[in-house]
Amino acid sequence: MRVAILAHENFPGRAKTAIGVLRYGEQEVVAVLDRDRPGERVRDHVPDLQDAPIVGSIDDIDEDLDALLIGVAPIGGGFDESWRDDVRAAIERGCDVISGLHYFLSEDEEFAALADDHGVELWDVRKPHDDLTVSKGVAADVDAEIILTVGTDCSVGKMTVSRELYEVAREQGVDAAFIPTGQTGIMIEGWGNPIDRVISDFTAGAVEEMILEKGNDHDYLFVEGQGSILHPAYSGVTCGILHGAMADRLVLCHVEGKEAIRSYEDTVLPPMDEYAALYESLAAPVHESEVVAGALNTAHLESDDTARQAVDRFETELGVPATDPIRFDAETILEETL
Amino acid sequence: MRVAILAHENFPGRAKTAIGVLRYGEQEVVAVLDRDRPGERVRDHVPDLQDAPIVGSIDDIDEDLDALLIGVAPIGGGFDESWRDDVRAAIERGCDVISGLHYFLSEDEEFAALADDHGVELWDVRKPHDDLTVSKGVAADVDAEIILTVGTDCSVGKMTVSRELYEVAREQGVDAAFIPTGQTGIMIEGWGNPIDRVISDFTAGAVEEMILEKGNDHDYLFVEGQGSILHPAYSGVTCGILHGAMADRLVLCHVEGKEAIRSYEDTVLPPMDEYAALYESLAAPVHESEVVAGALNTAHLESDDTARQAVDRFETELGVPATDPIRFDAETILEETL
Repeated sequence: MRVAILAHENFPGRAKTAIGVLRYGEQEVVAVLDRDRPGERVRDHVPDLQDAPIVGSIDDIDEDLDALLIGVAPIGGGFDESWRDDVRAAIERGCDVISGLHYFLSEDEEFAALADDHGVELWDVRKPHDDLTVSKGVAADVDAEIILTVGTDCSVGKMTVSRELYEVAREQGVDAAFIPTGQTGIMIEGWGNPIDRVISDFTAGAVEEMILEKGNDHDYLFVEGQGSILHPAYSGVTCGILHGAMADRLVLCHVEGKEAIRSYEDTVLPPMDEYAALYESLAAPVHESEVVAGALNTAHLESDDTARQAVDRFETELGVPATDPIRFDAETILEETL
Repeated sequence: MRVAILAHENFPGRAKTAIGVLRYGEQEVVAVLDRDRPGERVRDHVPDLQDAPIVGSIDDIDEDLDALLIGVAPIGGGFDESWRDDVRAAIERGCDVISGLHYFLSEDEEFAALADDHGVELWDVRKPHDDLTVSKGVAADVDAEIILTVGTDCSVGKMTVSRELYEVAREQGVDAAFIPTGQTGIMIEGWGNPIDRVISDFTAGAVEEMILEKGNDHDYLFVEGQGSILHPAYSGVTCGILHGAMADRLVLCHVEGKEAIRSYEDTVLPPMDEYAALYESLAAPVHESEVVAGALNTAHLESDDTARQAVDRFETELGVPATDPIRFDAETILEETL
């Protein structure tokens, strides 16, 4: 599938869906749309990804295209009207549109009618299916061991770390599956429940459903975490995933230098060992879970030496083995989780 | 408003909506429907409520009726098909139907058509409004002090305790408001966001919205809590309320003798002081909250002496003043919260 990824004014720093698909997706990315960076390339910004040109609008792409993928996830998940021209043009040239916004493109009158006219699909990844229900508290009963990534904030790399561990495990011949819980993971896998979009009563149940579906066919499940139990807006999602997944082992994800929750600067992060202990205390009465490793995102540090020092500090503060699994190697963490 | 309350096979033990409306609602309750107890009366089971006869079906009620209210909340919030005859008969005699189920009566084809024919309203209390969004983390900025009830499980009395504290505070001349978060509270107040039914990303935001609406017009807000942070299915809702409400003080609610989460018996409750400390640790990075009192539900104990002993044990284990605010007096708790 040949796709263009819309990431206007947000690539690369605030376009985690775009980055996730560029890193792990099966799709061939023909171009990234960012009107702030026309003429640049993906590789100018992030070295270890699938490369692609950055263009100002979809009309600047001459190649054939199967789909336009919305690669940004603004707080609140709204549709930015400045994207309308690109989405309209995509539909008119026969592209499907794949979106993880809270705002459903399939319920937008103009897009729905236009998609009908041109016979294309509007796939709202974040639209949950209708049969979700409450958790029965039985995820731990599956045969697989369950490994969940948890974080100190949103956008610290939980999806990336889960995905990386899953891929490295598979390369080593381990029978593992990936359980997607958010838009990027779902776009990469092609299935999954968008946990942040389900009815709040069904948060844990929607995770459990996926674990029951895959858990007896594999030895390990790598579950993509969301948010943080201390996030002022999203903690409910995180807590539901923590209890619904009944994970055996947790990997704590963090960004080097982060001291407070982004956009909620009054919420200062506790020391890493306390943060980990809070996750464990909250999990334990439902299912004993242990933070066995840490994953530190050091992408914004230039030198590997500085990054190594940051990892060492993080590891000391956290009290369990840690690394940057993207910059260095995922094996250090993987060993602790298997 | 003259109402009948449907509570088939569940009155009184598993009909907390019915009990809440009987205790605090402005409505005149003409009868309770429970096909297991025709001929009995409310007062046979719960002494300190508005009394009403219990009948087997709505056809046994001769008096005029304005509305039928669904007074049970089964796990999952589904509609029990054995209730259909009563709901149909209610609509046909011109009653509105008020429901807090996850299953929306207004989207049931038969009921919607019938309600249209008879010009009655189907009010689905649990249907959230469309403008909800994520929390900004600013509930603590309102003028009012915020008091939130938290619990060791579902159905331990959080709504009742919040409501009782609110009513006693008002009797004492305190300028207080009640913030409803669940179906019963909403039915009693006539407004409110059904937190367990909103999109999980908006859990905290839906609480914050209500607090911002009322918080500068009153000195105290009594916020109805939901679930428990250790409930395997509903913890996400609880965690979202805890962080969205940014409460100054918490009241821990418990049922005497409870040792595990109902229907999830593997989840054993920690000692009360640890349970309270876990709520405080989880709240603190977002907003410092302190468990200042405990509320113990002793309704199932016959003797007041036994109940007093239970309260004493609970108070000792919890480490802060406690009582049964319904059986004894709410003032003990109220003093700690103001």
